[in-house]
Amino acid sequence: MVQSAEIICVGTELLLGDILNSNAQYLAEQLAQLGIAHYYQTVVGDNPERIKQAIAIAVSRSNLLIFTGGLGPTPDDLTHSTIADYFGVPLVEHPEIVADITEKFAQRGRVMTDNNRKQALLPEGAEVLTNRAGSAPGIIWQPQTGVTILTFPGVPAEMKLMWQEVAVPYLTQQGWVTCTLFRRTLKFWGISESALAEKVNSYFDLQNPTVAPYANHGEVKLRIAALANSEAEALKLIQPIEQELRELGGADCYGIDHDTPAIAVGRMLQSAQMTLAVAESCTGGGLGAMLTSTPGSSAYFWGGVISYDNSVKVNLLGVNPDDLAQQGAVSAIVAEQMAIGVRDRLGTTWGLSITGIAGPDGGTETKPVGLVYIGLASATRVESFEHRFGGQRGREWVRRLSANTALDHLRRRLLNEGIINYY
Amino acid sequence: MVQSAEIICVGTELLLGDILNSNAQYLAEQLAQLGIAHYYQTVVGDNPERIKQAIAIAVSRSNLLIFTGGLGPTPDDLTHSTIADYFGVPLVEHPEIVADITEKFAQRGRVMTDNNRKQALLPEGAEVLTNRAGSAPGIIWQPQTGVTILTFPGVPAEMKLMWQEVAVPYLTQQGWVTCTLFRRTLKFWGISESALAEKVNSYFDLQNPTVAPYANHGEVKLRIAALANSEAEALKLIQPIEQELRELGGADCYGIDHDTPAIAVGRMLQSAQMTLAVAESCTGGGLGAMLTSTPGSSAYFWGGVISYDNSVKVNLLGVNPDDLAQQGAVSAIVAEQMAIGVRDRLGTTWGLSITGIAGPDGGTETKPVGLVYIGLASATRVESFEHRFGGQRGREWVRRLSANTALDHLRRRLLNEGIINYY
Repeated sequence: MVQSAEIICVGTELLLGDILNSNAQYLAEQLAQLGIAHYYQTVVGDNPERIKQAIAIAVSRSNLLIFTGGLGPTPDDLTHSTIADYFGVPLVEHPEIVADITEKFAQRGRVMTDNNRKQALLPEGAEVLTNRAGSAPGIIWQPQTGVTILTFPGVPAEMKLMWQEVAVPYLTQQGWVTCTLFRRTLKFWGISESALAEKVNSYFDLQNPTVAPYANHGEVKLRIAALANSEAEALKLIQPIEQELRELGGADCYGIDHDTPAIAVGRMLQSAQMTLAVAESCTGGGLGAMLTSTPGSSAYFWGGVISYDNSVKVNLLGVNPDDLAQQGAVSAIVAEQMAIGVRDRLGTTWGLSITGIAGPDGGTETKPVGLVYIGLASATRVESFEHRFGGQRGREWVRRLSANTALDHLRRRLLNEGIINYY
Repeated sequence: MVQSAEIICVGTELLLGDILNSNAQYLAEQLAQLGIAHYYQTVVGDNPERIKQAIAIAVSRSNLLIFTGGLGPTPDDLTHSTIADYFGVPLVEHPEIVADITEKFAQRGRVMTDNNRKQALLPEGAEVLTNRAGSAPGIIWQPQTGVTILTFPGVPAEMKLMWQEVAVPYLTQQGWVTCTLFRRTLKFWGISESALAEKVNSYFDLQNPTVAPYANHGEVKLRIAALANSEAEALKLIQPIEQELRELGGADCYGIDHDTPAIAVGRMLQSAQMTLAVAESCTGGGLGAMLTSTPGSSAYFWGGVISYDNSVKVNLLGVNPDDLAQQGAVSAIVAEQMAIGVRDRLGTTWGLSITGIAGPDGGTETKPVGLVYIGLASATRVESFEHRFGGQRGREWVRRLSANTALDHLRRRLLNEGIINYY
């Protein structure tokens, strides 16, 4: 049997669809990064017979069984007792865990109940997988030759901490980690997935690194992934390909990995010591919220005006009431006046504005849902851009796309002014 | 064997952790609502041998196999060919599907490739499960007595449409849908999960309906779920319990199901014909974005000022520069002046403001990360509220909690003024 891992998520709440199985994704990504093969995931409810069936199947096809969930204090938390039962060993109480739980409860001014004492019962022979962030510990156990079991609580923050602090070093030491999958993602705005794929088509046949396209929320990504024995080796494989793809991407490529259009714009404004103000209608503050989600954004983002009602456009931004009446709030001229107005009043280098119809109602034949105007003003020049995002994908989609597209117009303008986007 | 369903998600991208398995959650929730038992979920990669193993295991323990993924045009889309192979039948081409795909491509000005023609190959004897939203159809098939197979593409929007339009009517007609799980969620703000649980403890032992608490992002929910033969019967079981829980919840209960604090506040403002303006510092527009995510919010939300930089607080909101210098931007007096200023300038009934330290940097011993002041002004009165949200859970957590807490203060103030929150 090839060495491989299987993820087993225990919890009736997963079978009821009450929660999204983000633990499985996290562990899957981690296994891929460590180069540990992983062919199956199983979800099973809080039922001892069915958990035992899942264990039997997993043991027949995988050597590393990674459990999440079912370690809590309530009667339907059955993972450890069922694993012990399956392998025919008793549960034993660990006094150091009882002490640890008692202390954690005392810190919060509470007394430990008998329910919680249950969490100190682990299969005989299993090592404790310490949980620093919560009360339920996991186990590391080899119940028989060729079978390793790791268990984690279902709470994602606890699971992740335990995975990083204990499981990864353990798996490395046990020889499970044989190579590293290192990834670099290039991010694009303003080009469709198919247009980008056509440009870089020949790269999709590469074996190591591999190149694959992804698209979501109007954004397109190229992921470059290399398998190697070390990060340095992986980088050596990735870097020349990354360089070529960046050149092919040109101005459509705005950044890498965790970058967003707001981060790219912020980086460029900061390096050029420029400042930005926004005037938002249909996005209602969403553009400002995107910009300020970056710590330190106060260096270049000064604020703005949410001009949702037309009176605010006139009174706070100086939009001409006649233009508003004749052209409507969703028009190029109003977008331009909003951008000029907010720039003037806040005294920033740039003013960026959005006015549009987010839907689902409010559209007309000439001005349908999804019609959005973006205005961009500097001290010497104002321009506007018309977009038709459609209404099929809903209000939040139009709003998110509008904000990111506005940022992308500013980014391209900054590029045209010679400001380099170092990423 | 008890009649039960099993969800089988096919896709190496799930095993690599590239995507979150939201399809499994959607289908699980749907099965629960239709009262169809469901004990296992399996995830398997694009590998015919392993897909066949998963089918063999599923057929041994479940009668309804629901597949998602692997229906696309590329060589690693193997679901239909592997299912046909497992049950020993050939694939047959459906000319009507070829015609449908050709037409869909023509509409987008593209020519169908041979790759796409593959999507018209279905196991002999299987019915077509039409995909109106995309090119890949699924199947409905009973390959042997006691085994029903449904297949769906991995694209969530296509899968959901096909599920609702074809699968639910089919399962109903086939007698799978024997009862209905109906849920009502009560939503709370301003009370901890444990405090609420203590209040309503006795309800957790109920059998039908059941009552269970959930908590996330600072919000606490009570979910009431009833199993019955019809929605009307379920409602009869739920309503008296819901009424009692609402009374026990009092002012902490702000709404039901898809309500948010922003929706509750909007509902109250609209019924009282009142209007609102916001002044945002650390949330940077997030409060406005929450308010305007509700269609029709222009009836009560007029807009506001994002006063991220202190100059904006002074110039656009009239905050006193001396108070700013002496008390700092994150202070009760600045929050109050921001609320007064935005209310005055926009001419609304209410002004609501937020100023705080979202982190991760910028905290001091006296003003730590997570310290937030909320200001609330009417024509005759201004008040402010101090909160300490801590910095452990990150910048976005502080910002989201700040915005929702600000809305909750306004909601409670409106309640005190005699405005009823009808929900």
